[in-house]
Amino acid sequence: MSLSKIYKLHLSPDRGFVKRMRNLLGFVPGNIALYKMAFRHKSMAVLLKNGSKSSNERLEFLGDAVLGSVIAEVLFKLYPYKNEGFLTELRSKIVRRANLNQLGRKLGFNELIDFDAKTVNVGSHQSSLLGDAFEALIGAIYLDKGYDFTKSYITERIIKPHIDIHTLELTEVNFKSKLIEWCQRQAKEIAFEPIANADGDSTKLFSVQVLVDGEAIASATDYSKKNAEKLASEKACEVLNV
Amino acid sequence: MSLSKIYKLHLSPDRGFVKRMRNLLGFVPGNIALYKMAFRHKSMAVLLKNGSKSSNERLEFLGDAVLGSVIAEVLFKLYPYKNEGFLTELRSKIVRRANLNQLGRKLGFNELIDFDAKTVNVGSHQSSLLGDAFEALIGAIYLDKGYDFTKSYITERIIKPHIDIHTLELTEVNFKSKLIEWCQRQAKEIAFEPIANADGDSTKLFSVQVLVDGEAIASATDYSKKNAEKLASEKACEVLNV
Repeated sequence: MSLSKIYKLHLSPDRGFVKRMRNLLGFVPGNIALYKMAFRHKSMAVLLKNGSKSSNERLEFLGDAVLGSVIAEVLFKLYPYKNEGFLTELRSKIVRRANLNQLGRKLGFNELIDFDAKTVNVGSHQSSLLGDAFEALIGAIYLDKGYDFTKSYITERIIKPHIDIHTLELTEVNFKSKLIEWCQRQAKEIAFEPIANADGDSTKLFSVQVLVDGEAIASATDYSKKNAEKLASEKACEVLNV
Repeated sequence: MSLSKIYKLHLSPDRGFVKRMRNLLGFVPGNIALYKMAFRHKSMAVLLKNGSKSSNERLEFLGDAVLGSVIAEVLFKLYPYKNEGFLTELRSKIVRRANLNQLGRKLGFNELIDFDAKTVNVGSHQSSLLGDAFEALIGAIYLDKGYDFTKSYITERIIKPHIDIHTLELTEVNFKSKLIEWCQRQAKEIAFEPIANADGDSTKLFSVQVLVDGEAIASATDYSKKNAEKLASEKACEVLNV
């Protein structure tokens, strides 16, 4: 083990954090500040000298892109005869916010994320804190270790142990049922409403909004009412982290 | 120069294509079949033994993701104090289909793409043939040469000579004006129509559709009518490659 690693793990003031990272990641981070940033929620943003605020949101932007690219390649190679529509849909099933939140929970992010408990409810279904931090972590690994390293981290330590791609492939998520069941469990009222406008013109397009306890959560437009409801439900599931 | 390169450039049956690729890319491709596939439009798809069809669409899926990731990093590093909202918006300005089509045109893709002229009109504004092939080319380079190579190709040979990021940053695209001007130039009639449904409920949400020569092109929903029109215009510009 290099002297720098020994220092980081046993002597530095960050040694507690570094050990946790080593256990989580399977390697000792190079640039520790990046990993600390990945777990800093915007409610705990640090004010920089130039007046801008620093939290994990920029790393999340980067990590989201790197993750999308790695998953694209994994699927491209895993399904050599499937078309791009299939690949796009399967990727979006894998990186759904609800899945990434669940992943963050399994990886123990609850105890790692630095957030303001007075303003943020980490247990709330509305919160995407865990999934956001997961993406930010991918951004941090990428900046610290490069693309190929990040790709093997994602395939070996995330996909293989935690994501069952073939099951996801076969799962046709019925977002409308999912949303209705969730509302029942949460004792919330759900309604699908056509969106109406002043003019009475009837057209070929249907617009629908989803209301949960009377609050408009999402809307969608399609040539069939059924599809508009399906699309609006999918958006609502995303918003509510169902 | 290696023997393999000499063969590819001067002796192989593909030498004409290989020379064009060398001029376009600045390097001699390794796996030539990948680059040929990148320029194969779906109208010329090859039927594989297993019954699936092969064109540049799968490479486009992969290249789109790799391009998104490279641009994310470029912007992340170029604007260290900007938030993720700024970065997301600027990236989407850079990779807009109309921009990628224009890039493909500048790079001379017109003469490279293998498409069925009987069914596809490459000059049509509806066609995203050029931009799609550009993304597919990025996918091919990635599979052939890896991420770091692709990243320097994009930054050195695409961004530096062809994309003025700072100008794009300052350009607030007014999609509604853009769409209206385009329709005037093309002598097409444009109309924004509220989307109405059977029920007469009035809600807080506005849904608007854009009609060009009476045909519904795109729609959007927002809490303000102005914003709904703006969003619908943006979608219509994307669909029409304006």
